[in-house]
Amino acid sequence: MFQPVYLDHNATTPLDPAVLAAMLPWLESLCGNASSRHEYGRRARQALDEARQQVAAALGAHPTEVIFTSGGSEANNLFIKGAAVCRRAGLIAVSAVEHPCVRQPAAQLARQGWTLREIAVDAAGRIAGEDYQRALQGKPALVSVMAANNETGVVHDIAALADAARAGGAAFHSDAVQAFGKLPLDFRALNAAGVQALSVSAHKINGPKGAAALIVDKRLELQAQIAGGGHERGLRSGTENVPAIVGFGVAAELAAQNLGERAERLRALRQRLEAGLTALGAKIFAAAAERLPNTSYFAFPNIDGETLVGKLDREGFAVASGAACSSADPEPSHVLRAMGVAPELARGAVRVSLGAGNDAGEIDRFINAVQATVGRLHGLTAMAV
Amino acid sequence: MFQPVYLDHNATTPLDPAVLAAMLPWLESLCGNASSRHEYGRRARQALDEARQQVAAALGAHPTEVIFTSGGSEANNLFIKGAAVCRRAGLIAVSAVEHPCVRQPAAQLARQGWTLREIAVDAAGRIAGEDYQRALQGKPALVSVMAANNETGVVHDIAALADAARAGGAAFHSDAVQAFGKLPLDFRALNAAGVQALSVSAHKINGPKGAAALIVDKRLELQAQIAGGGHERGLRSGTENVPAIVGFGVAAELAAQNLGERAERLRALRQRLEAGLTALGAKIFAAAAERLPNTSYFAFPNIDGETLVGKLDREGFAVASGAACSSADPEPSHVLRAMGVAPELARGAVRVSLGAGNDAGEIDRFINAVQATVGRLHGLTAMAV
Repeated sequence: MFQPVYLDHNATTPLDPAVLAAMLPWLESLCGNASSRHEYGRRARQALDEARQQVAAALGAHPTEVIFTSGGSEANNLFIKGAAVCRRAGLIAVSAVEHPCVRQPAAQLARQGWTLREIAVDAAGRIAGEDYQRALQGKPALVSVMAANNETGVVHDIAALADAARAGGAAFHSDAVQAFGKLPLDFRALNAAGVQALSVSAHKINGPKGAAALIVDKRLELQAQIAGGGHERGLRSGTENVPAIVGFGVAAELAAQNLGERAERLRALRQRLEAGLTALGAKIFAAAAERLPNTSYFAFPNIDGETLVGKLDREGFAVASGAACSSADPEPSHVLRAMGVAPELARGAVRVSLGAGNDAGEIDRFINAVQATVGRLHGLTAMAV
Repeated sequence: MFQPVYLDHNATTPLDPAVLAAMLPWLESLCGNASSRHEYGRRARQALDEARQQVAAALGAHPTEVIFTSGGSEANNLFIKGAAVCRRAGLIAVSAVEHPCVRQPAAQLARQGWTLREIAVDAAGRIAGEDYQRALQGKPALVSVMAANNETGVVHDIAALADAARAGGAAFHSDAVQAFGKLPLDFRALNAAGVQALSVSAHKINGPKGAAALIVDKRLELQAQIAGGGHERGLRSGTENVPAIVGFGVAAELAAQNLGERAERLRALRQRLEAGLTALGAKIFAAAAERLPNTSYFAFPNIDGETLVGKLDREGFAVASGAACSSADPEPSHVLRAMGVAPELARGAVRVSLGAGNDAGEIDRFINAVQATVGRLHGLTAMAV
């Protein structure tokens, strides 16, 4: 079967074989309902407890601070709406570069009496400090700023941002779905600085789809968005997805173990990639900012990003144009728009996101493919003129 | 390893080997993000499309009527809250025997300006017709009555109930999580009668945990509860759990194929079980009602249900006391309370729910174990007196 080189790890990642090995016994033989009071139920409950400890340990959190959800989108919605419903309608401030699963629930609140304030970013995709200060002057009840952006990879100093928001009494949340496994995250330290909730997801760290968590300060007032049997300390009902959560536990443990070494290797690969792309005339977005080690977001002037992604796909390279999750949306990226990138250039945006399995040979072959493809596309453009 | 006889299929079921076989390729090699516009993304999208067709076909629905969720609790919450937010606050009527994942979101609405009306059941657990008519006179905006009860197995005639509710303009939903795979369900016919949404779940039909669906009439006004990238026609955002959904598709197909034969076999097994239990002095709850073929709910006077379940567990039989999902709650079952069962007898409640793997030998060994255990417990009670 045709197996293109996978360079889209911010969209999703392959399961680590050790993760699959941990999951298989829970798929091959009966996995009980963890609420059941018999042997099968107790085994499932023990497996959940162990996974909760693994996820907590990987994030410097206490196991009771881990609320399992079905995905990062659910975790973000749980914070935004679950914290909002416990408060009087007021101001919610979120960065202009948040993922749609923060932007959309915030927009829903804005239709229910809340005021939505977007926090500007600078040309490099960093939170604009002055605008953040202005937003805080409005005394937001809720603030959400992602730990790292899924498109540009730009890292935000959430500890400092939370600390600044604390005086006004805001509940501060961070979507750490892209940061987890790529940057060190210590919820104890972040919580001390004022971060009260953190979203993380398994399938971005070589774990399975279907498991994620909201890591949450237990003092935060929060209401379940999926209400029912009272699972997850009453904050998320529904039969626990034990096989996926077991996989999440192992993936989190491995991500924490491999973090330093993997980040260094990916950073070197990215440097090789961006040197090659720059030599071919690409503009690298957010290059001036601190970024995730694995993410490169770029455009070639006068080359349409969708077209380039399609051609590279046929050449055997899987990359993204704009954010994978909103690829159905033909509008240029809201992230690049917020950075003030000209629409013509933004339409050229292509994202490469590296993962554990990539190597230098793949990068070199990718650059050759980009060179050939861009050359052909420029030729077509020239002919069309 | 100790492998007790599993008699708790209403809590969860083992994966059918054919379901696991269909899922494995999506776990063993890279499963793309179905939103990605490259080879891996397209393959994932095709697998989702096929699973959607399988689930739709098993339920007599159109694929575009299938909204995948992470579980039955999420599907029920999506209907209750997602339909409520599109309407002016009014009356919501739900049966007194609904699962907590219908009762709790309805109770949340009641704290947000809605009026919650519980519909009574009779002593056999059937919807009380007169009380239902009275409830409809209040012109509820939303009505939710389960297709079959998880504890008693009592089947409700949702087509007739929906038809009666139609004149008042109610949106009618049914939690069919327990009915699916045990009773024929044809959404086309149900929808024609006025059922606008149906919740179903994979892990109750020998499919995986982590996949379920709300089958929904597209004319129903509904708002996403997990908002974000706009997946599932904008009604449920989040990266699709492709391996679990693939498994759900196959499980749904198999459930529909095996339905008649399996129901007949389980009904005969249950008859054997209940003949044995009755001979030992058990009271069978809801015996006068039409019930799911696999479910038996009973009590021995003066024997505590929790205690009996614990003893049977040690003897190698996995059964439930009350509803598995709320086993953390030591209160007697709200279902039996609604049926007017005396609290002393309700505290004795034990549920056996049969599945594809059970056979007559297991039933006979179970009855022997019950006889011995009940005998010992009666002896202890006698000594204590």
